[in-house]
Amino acid sequence: MINFDYQSPTKVIFGKGAEMKAGEEVKAWGGHKVMIPYGGDYLKKNGLLDRVHQSLTEAGIEYVDLEGVVPNPHLGLVKEGIRICKEEGVDFLLPIGGGSAIDTAKGIAYGLVNDFELEDLLLGKVTTDKIAPLGCISTIAATGSETSNSMVITIEDGWLKRSYNHDCARPKFAIMNPELTYTLPVYQTASGASDIMMHTMERYFTNTKDVDLIDRMAEGLLVAVREAAKVAVKTPDDYEARATLMWAGSLSHNGLTGTGRVADFASHKIEHELGGMFDVAHGAGLCAIWGSWARYVYKTNPARFAQFAVRVFDVPENFQDVEATALRGIEAWEDWCSVIGMPTNLRELGVEPTDEQIDEMAEKCVATGGGHVGFFQTLYKDDVVQIYKNAR
Amino acid sequence: MINFDYQSPTKVIFGKGAEMKAGEEVKAWGGHKVMIPYGGDYLKKNGLLDRVHQSLTEAGIEYVDLEGVVPNPHLGLVKEGIRICKEEGVDFLLPIGGGSAIDTAKGIAYGLVNDFELEDLLLGKVTTDKIAPLGCISTIAATGSETSNSMVITIEDGWLKRSYNHDCARPKFAIMNPELTYTLPVYQTASGASDIMMHTMERYFTNTKDVDLIDRMAEGLLVAVREAAKVAVKTPDDYEARATLMWAGSLSHNGLTGTGRVADFASHKIEHELGGMFDVAHGAGLCAIWGSWARYVYKTNPARFAQFAVRVFDVPENFQDVEATALRGIEAWEDWCSVIGMPTNLRELGVEPTDEQIDEMAEKCVATGGGHVGFFQTLYKDDVVQIYKNAR
Repeated sequence: MINFDYQSPTKVIFGKGAEMKAGEEVKAWGGHKVMIPYGGDYLKKNGLLDRVHQSLTEAGIEYVDLEGVVPNPHLGLVKEGIRICKEEGVDFLLPIGGGSAIDTAKGIAYGLVNDFELEDLLLGKVTTDKIAPLGCISTIAATGSETSNSMVITIEDGWLKRSYNHDCARPKFAIMNPELTYTLPVYQTASGASDIMMHTMERYFTNTKDVDLIDRMAEGLLVAVREAAKVAVKTPDDYEARATLMWAGSLSHNGLTGTGRVADFASHKIEHELGGMFDVAHGAGLCAIWGSWARYVYKTNPARFAQFAVRVFDVPENFQDVEATALRGIEAWEDWCSVIGMPTNLRELGVEPTDEQIDEMAEKCVATGGGHVGFFQTLYKDDVVQIYKNAR
Repeated sequence: MINFDYQSPTKVIFGKGAEMKAGEEVKAWGGHKVMIPYGGDYLKKNGLLDRVHQSLTEAGIEYVDLEGVVPNPHLGLVKEGIRICKEEGVDFLLPIGGGSAIDTAKGIAYGLVNDFELEDLLLGKVTTDKIAPLGCISTIAATGSETSNSMVITIEDGWLKRSYNHDCARPKFAIMNPELTYTLPVYQTASGASDIMMHTMERYFTNTKDVDLIDRMAEGLLVAVREAAKVAVKTPDDYEARATLMWAGSLSHNGLTGTGRVADFASHKIEHELGGMFDVAHGAGLCAIWGSWARYVYKTNPARFAQFAVRVFDVPENFQDVEATALRGIEAWEDWCSVIGMPTNLRELGVEPTDEQIDEMAEKCVATGGGHVGFFQTLYKDDVVQIYKNAR
């Protein structure tokens, strides 16, 4: 176990009807006027937006809506949000939605209290530990942005999907009502569940020794999500499956499962370029890439892949051949993806990049990491090209 | 899964040399002059107290030591601490030690900013959400008080061991260096490991349905602690075993493993009376009681005990007889206690209460709960008497 600092201060308000506490929470955290970034008509149709407005009004909080958040959220809307917040005197962000709405709000919140251009933050030219306060109402179990320190925004100029991570960006509170996820399309539900698995797996695949405690807790989370996802895609209004996915979504990305170890995150970086270029659902993109990544790197530490196979996917252990067990685990993951309707390669994802496009994505992918990505196995541009190609 | 609020904001600073960050952390959290409650000469002998003083001085923080903390810490020292803090203008508490030092500091911190007598808080006559800020340096993996919202203090008048829980009492930061636990006596190491197991088990034994996610994460924690404890009692300077116990100690009692369910905590309440009357090590007292509690209540929900047996102690499942599997799990726990040198009954604990003493303990035990304790199975005075007697 390596030394670590860990802090996940977000107050989680979890359960049925939790959204009606939005007003009192904003008030308790010192907000007076909120901006509500969101995307999609469903919040109007299902009455959620009205209920949140009502809760805010009852608490004496003013609000401005900011419609138009899209998946892989764009910097343009973030900038528009900053402009409106400054005009309107907004002092608190209250996104409703999944990672896209929450990350849009994080971008706005950074912009409100810093003087730099947000591009510079996303491109690593500046850093900050200042952000305006935000709370959120989560309606999608996926990114974990509701408690995490990360923000992912796509810069339209060049379609660069870039992130900035700082603990200051953890929301003050996160309201999570699993019922709000009942109406998510099956594909989005499965994509979100895959993202939750992957947030845990990016940290699970490590070469740090003696990490049994967090390994076992992570394995428990993975098994629970494995089963809940299968239920949720078949029975969208199963409260318990939705609750499992929602709470696991936060626990998978609030940093807990990464304590005491070096995390990998190569698959996320490789997928981010797909998301930037082809605008695919993030979790689905991860599913399409992970098998290719895993087969490319598993010989670095076959024992860890074998442990994953046996403990997470109940693969019968082949004591004579650790690599065989490892490979069975990768297959088991792909079988799970198929069962919940997720792709296991780029073709199934509906994306057919040319060699030139792959070259461009690989170039961008390694650029922000100083020429390489990943810690389980360090991957250079040629490695990333091969992983994209093997995933076709 | 039931609705819940959850917040565990303590910043964890974990690993080798972490104590040297004490000064900068106190400064970052706004402290100017700290009181350091601690107990035992070992902090002077091993140089830890000197290193903390040095770190504080380097950060420009003044300090006052408060020696004399004892296990099952006394209200008397808390009151003395409050008096000295007021005289000296202390604005931040920095205990060094385990739950006894940290809880002493919590008591002082409550006293510094509230006007009531602390007895009234412990006896449930008043409540508060105000406390002076504290951070801590943990040297014992056990109570989890370094990140928890709870405080347990013994009132000498009547030897009442009483608690007050409020989220305001969570330390601002918790410094945890596993190396600081190397010199703990074997018995204290085992007692602490048992306390960690029990903090998780008190929440694990629930009748709330559909709690698979946290069940599995808790089971992972329990298995890791089960193994690390066996290593730590044989090889006191095994860093990885110590690190597992230390981090698990926090995760077992920061509230995470209780999210979405009704927790029990009858065993803790039953043990608290033993601790108050006979001053036994808390974890050892829990070991001496739990088997008796478990055999008294397991028929309420044999399936849950069977799940514990199979998943935590690898008991072969008897599919024909769930109660047989359940009982094997209770035995497996007792075997584990024996292996690490913990008692499994009151005689082994070195305590032989008379019938009159048992009656008195049972009376006190149920008094604070309005005549009963526990949620897995509601226990009245007669039940508690029987559990004490069966544990003899």
